[in-house]
Amino acid sequence: MTLLLRSLALQPTPRRPLWLMRQAGRYLPEYRKVREKSGGFLAMAKTPELACEITLQPVRRFGLDAAIIFSDILTIPDALGLQLRFAEGEGPKLNNPLRAENDVAKFCARAESGGLDLEYVCAACRLAAAALPAEIPLIGFCGSPWTLACYMIDGEGGGFWRARAMRYSRPDLLHSILQTNARAAAESLCGQMQAGCKVAMIFDSWGGLLGEDYEEFSLRYIRETVAAVKAKCKTPVIVFSRQCAAHLAQTAKCGCDAVGVDWQIPLSRAREITGGKIALQGNMDPATLLADKKAVQQEALKILRDYGNAPGHIFNLGHGVDKNTPPENIQTLAETVRSHILP
Amino acid sequence: MTLLLRSLALQPTPRRPLWLMRQAGRYLPEYRKVREKSGGFLAMAKTPELACEITLQPVRRFGLDAAIIFSDILTIPDALGLQLRFAEGEGPKLNNPLRAENDVAKFCARAESGGLDLEYVCAACRLAAAALPAEIPLIGFCGSPWTLACYMIDGEGGGFWRARAMRYSRPDLLHSILQTNARAAAESLCGQMQAGCKVAMIFDSWGGLLGEDYEEFSLRYIRETVAAVKAKCKTPVIVFSRQCAAHLAQTAKCGCDAVGVDWQIPLSRAREITGGKIALQGNMDPATLLADKKAVQQEALKILRDYGNAPGHIFNLGHGVDKNTPPENIQTLAETVRSHILP
Repeated sequence: MTLLLRSLALQPTPRRPLWLMRQAGRYLPEYRKVREKSGGFLAMAKTPELACEITLQPVRRFGLDAAIIFSDILTIPDALGLQLRFAEGEGPKLNNPLRAENDVAKFCARAESGGLDLEYVCAACRLAAAALPAEIPLIGFCGSPWTLACYMIDGEGGGFWRARAMRYSRPDLLHSILQTNARAAAESLCGQMQAGCKVAMIFDSWGGLLGEDYEEFSLRYIRETVAAVKAKCKTPVIVFSRQCAAHLAQTAKCGCDAVGVDWQIPLSRAREITGGKIALQGNMDPATLLADKKAVQQEALKILRDYGNAPGHIFNLGHGVDKNTPPENIQTLAETVRSHILP
Repeated sequence: MTLLLRSLALQPTPRRPLWLMRQAGRYLPEYRKVREKSGGFLAMAKTPELACEITLQPVRRFGLDAAIIFSDILTIPDALGLQLRFAEGEGPKLNNPLRAENDVAKFCARAESGGLDLEYVCAACRLAAAALPAEIPLIGFCGSPWTLACYMIDGEGGGFWRARAMRYSRPDLLHSILQTNARAAAESLCGQMQAGCKVAMIFDSWGGLLGEDYEEFSLRYIRETVAAVKAKCKTPVIVFSRQCAAHLAQTAKCGCDAVGVDWQIPLSRAREITGGKIALQGNMDPATLLADKKAVQQEALKILRDYGNAPGHIFNLGHGVDKNTPPENIQTLAETVRSHILP
């Protein structure tokens, strides 16, 4: 079994597996080269050969222990008719956000009647899985039902005020959207697993907006998604609810194999909370990678030592790699984690 | 004593005091009218008569229990030579951010040699304090040393990657900036108190970015600011570190009289953590105010009941009022809180 899969199963490994959220991206010159020729982010994500190439770039350059398919969580709303676009210099936008009761009814009906056509994602997974060496598993992913709903309702980033307000004004509509999203998320993950991915990851990037309502509007639907994936594909599942340290104990019990942890709390504290019963992925502040070599080594060692020698740690960041990251700092991080041999 | 001051002193009140973060602002037609004639946000903040008028608007309209001076946390970096501007449709920017060692040295030297000229803020405070009825105290405020440093180093919002990275690459420079900011924050607050403010508030809007480093880079300097204010002005101090529920126990012990709480945790849990030894301010999700009247009433009652009948609750939001808030929802909130009589 690969390092990542052994850590996910809480089995001992000679060293920690390492991969990084948003490890493929703008900070890499080889990525920018593909992007220039391709016509932008969405064109790359929708062209399997390019998505495959970008997926492999950071693994080749740094010798990371996993690849994650180059795609976007908003491929699901796009496939469900909300029309994704990336305006230059702005974040992603959906042309048809879900605002009125009628929008939601049409959206749910459409999702129920038709399947989820994300063949381009699956095609990219097949290419990347075939190209990767056996010891490097490919990770497939999706957004959590709540995080997808944030974009679906507001149509763009920037606070997600409409989605947050809907849980007070029309919780019934919000639950319909979330139920539809849970099914779509599971279908998308299973498609990626059947196309060669060995691990599924659910990004709940905006779970932290919910506060006390996290269980009702996010975790509940993550649990459904995980159960559906587990029933059909048997692959391990990693759940990362960002800025949700307060809910870590509950998240760890949602049926997943690992939880992502950000730098709100040290990994040693996260292990206390989860009782060592589940693998932990994290938790370096990606801003560390904007500092110098010495700082990167020092912070990496701090995290490695803080977790201790028990199995079940997947080294990662607490958020994605920033676009201004010098690639040599990731090289330093990779060397530091690789040379930290477990007793 | 006014309702707010009694609650801050943990004394019983017939009902909870209510005020709202960013209660003066774009959601009010009377604010937009002043803004149109004035030439924008900064012109309003720097013209004492206009700042006073805007400060009074929400108190007049809704009968709130406190006013907060209309100003901005970035008046301090502006007064210290970093040049604040608000580009149309964008957030605030500083023309002279602190990037190199030399920038920081010049900044600290300048701050030490000259005083902090924020006379326009003090003039607005004098006007507003004189215009307010005796039962409505005026709140003065500033940004926390860390939150000010975020803007000073990055020059604009959007993740504050440079400020976060500086704590790894040059913690010595960051500490110099924070030390300077702590003095400036205390000086600014004392100036506002001498100009008629009855309560001081420190906004640590970006403390949540720090994770485990919150004590070292934020709370330590908040503590210094609070001590300096207390030594000179004796007024109560409220500290609000946003998205810092994990650090609430420490924050409550920084010498302040109340802590702000956001909706990450219920107030009842916050009271358990702080042992009822300090007043709590919060914690409605401002997205509630984008829903309907019934939802506003229901969520307000939920919070009032969750806190219980003990003294020491100042009703507020967990973040500022959104620009799309219908004013009638704030009217509903004010009526709901006012009519909730304590036994």
